[in-house]
Amino acid sequence: MDRDVAIIGGSMTKFGQRDAWIRELLAQAGEECLADAGVAPGDVEHVYVSNMASGEFEGQTGIMNAVAHDLGLMPAYSQRIDQTSSSGGAGIYGAWQSIASGASDMTLLVGGEKMTHKGTGGATDIIASITHPAEYKHGVTLPSFAGMTARHYLERFDAPRDSLAKVAVKNHKNGVDNPKAQFQKEIDVETALESPIIADPLRLYDFCPITDGSSALMFCPVEVAEQYTDEYVVVSGIGGATDTHVVHERDDPTTMGGVVESGQTAYERAGLGPEDVDVAELHDMFTILEFLQMEGLDFAEKGEAWKHVEEGRTEKDGELPINTSGGLKSKGHPLGASGVAQGYEIYEQLVGEAGPRQVEADTGLACNVGGFGNCVITTIMEAR
Amino acid sequence: MDRDVAIIGGSMTKFGQRDAWIRELLAQAGEECLADAGVAPGDVEHVYVSNMASGEFEGQTGIMNAVAHDLGLMPAYSQRIDQTSSSGGAGIYGAWQSIASGASDMTLLVGGEKMTHKGTGGATDIIASITHPAEYKHGVTLPSFAGMTARHYLERFDAPRDSLAKVAVKNHKNGVDNPKAQFQKEIDVETALESPIIADPLRLYDFCPITDGSSALMFCPVEVAEQYTDEYVVVSGIGGATDTHVVHERDDPTTMGGVVESGQTAYERAGLGPEDVDVAELHDMFTILEFLQMEGLDFAEKGEAWKHVEEGRTEKDGELPINTSGGLKSKGHPLGASGVAQGYEIYEQLVGEAGPRQVEADTGLACNVGGFGNCVITTIMEAR
Repeated sequence: MDRDVAIIGGSMTKFGQRDAWIRELLAQAGEECLADAGVAPGDVEHVYVSNMASGEFEGQTGIMNAVAHDLGLMPAYSQRIDQTSSSGGAGIYGAWQSIASGASDMTLLVGGEKMTHKGTGGATDIIASITHPAEYKHGVTLPSFAGMTARHYLERFDAPRDSLAKVAVKNHKNGVDNPKAQFQKEIDVETALESPIIADPLRLYDFCPITDGSSALMFCPVEVAEQYTDEYVVVSGIGGATDTHVVHERDDPTTMGGVVESGQTAYERAGLGPEDVDVAELHDMFTILEFLQMEGLDFAEKGEAWKHVEEGRTEKDGELPINTSGGLKSKGHPLGASGVAQGYEIYEQLVGEAGPRQVEADTGLACNVGGFGNCVITTIMEAR
Repeated sequence: MDRDVAIIGGSMTKFGQRDAWIRELLAQAGEECLADAGVAPGDVEHVYVSNMASGEFEGQTGIMNAVAHDLGLMPAYSQRIDQTSSSGGAGIYGAWQSIASGASDMTLLVGGEKMTHKGTGGATDIIASITHPAEYKHGVTLPSFAGMTARHYLERFDAPRDSLAKVAVKNHKNGVDNPKAQFQKEIDVETALESPIIADPLRLYDFCPITDGSSALMFCPVEVAEQYTDEYVVVSGIGGATDTHVVHERDDPTTMGGVVESGQTAYERAGLGPEDVDVAELHDMFTILEFLQMEGLDFAEKGEAWKHVEEGRTEKDGELPINTSGGLKSKGHPLGASGVAQGYEIYEQLVGEAGPRQVEADTGLACNVGGFGNCVITTIMEAR
């Protein structure tokens, strides 16, 4: 590896239902990130835009070009990165490679998605276009995979249904302290358990919402970072992995191979293990996913993540706070933005700018899941 | 820069109207590239898929996941790269960064697009979605930009209309020797000049066709390449740049800033100049673009590219053969595949596998243009 990669600034728009198009959301986050990092537009050499489907959602493509134009970054190199729901994490990996390879000395990553104007059904249809035709024709969507997996997990590991609801309760509680989150609203276990069934046994509060929003991060080599600020983080480990496109071909529905593989690579590159992680953002698109990632990343033994949640170990004041930002559940999930926003939360925690969400942390991890574990990126950051 | 980046194999499907979906086209090119490079699926660490719009064309997204699955590459990291018509060139840059950064020791790049089922009008609509809303609402498409630019160029530089037709004639002639090209058909100047007007003064034969197809390349560090083969090329220089999203904001419509900037970066990184290039693939989506790239890359003085064409200097037996593959004009232009296929032609020329198209060349250049010069990638390769 050539050069250590630093993050020197970040931003996030308000997540929720926004009266703005994707170009405007990306420009807003990009502008705020430039200001936060103290970087002049002319100093940006590469721009990566994480986005799954601006063409399908809005009939607007070429948005990397739009971002470079709107922020006055020309002639900086610009490119779009898509990895469906993990496009943001893939953007972090792309930005990391641009710096580590020497291709760029200053890379702006902006992730975003504009979804709410399509409604829940329209957005779910677009998201379902990632599934393999062999499964798509049977009408499966990501929520239906989640329902089947949750049922299997609860039965196999004798886990109480409440434990899934408690993930939602925790993440909603954390979201109250995040003014950028879509929801600042506590819920209780009863509310979650009595909400409408979506994909049995999962109910409304087991699912993240449909969201508009954007988030950005600024990357550069450590030696450049030091010219800008004393407060930066280092991306010390990052790994990405792919699992089967046909979900039913997997050996064990409760193991996400991409989580395991990407986590191992990230831990190896950082020279760290799960015990070194102080704070984590996991991809809780569905509550069950928080369990699968906790186990795939070795924060919990197989089949025991639910016990950690029951015991409060993943609360903000627990031994490993998970989703201090509110997670996708409460913060919202604008596809291309989510992985970047996960990175932004870890960045804020490590530089001590998380305000009422602040925990004590020197090392953080983010896990961004595309599809139903089809593509996964795990990133480890350390305070310097 | 960390590690020298080599290309050790490549492939290209037949370009044209194909009775196969994007997943099948990508898998075919990927499989042939693995075989050509002699690389086992298990040795691939990263997979990049260059594609602009599989969602808009086919309602299928997540195609990087499909490629990894169909070729049995899991758990290799996979990601889609979009830069509209220059997605293939952006893929080369992405693959280059993955190797140079140390993130991967073996990266497969597959580019492709399935377009013909939408018809010329449907495909042109999807492509036009890259334009800025400020121009889109006035009905401009890429062909209309090309017509306006061609008229300006011919008048300003007193160039004969014939010179544009001669670009088409040359590229069609070269395409006869490329069995993978969409057309193997010579045309004469009269045919080009008498074909239907599309965007005055440009006529049917000034435009590339709508095409289905895929192309692939295999990248690794030079030290790894040497374990596989004696015949490889090195990507010694590569640069990418962005121009304004709003085309009419540019100072000079006959200068593509992205071509100039990306070319300068590529020359600098390679330590070479235009005089060192022995063969080039330029993005002749429209004949006028071949002139603008020749001038932007300093193969010709400003306003004089047409003279080189008139004098036959860019013919296969000329001093700088351009588009020996047949170019986009004759080979076809499946958006995400084109930049990869340009790289594949240069690779074949440099390793001496271009068959009847073979020219004498140690150094080659490919220039891939997104939008109307909105994003551009220039790549320089050298035989070793």
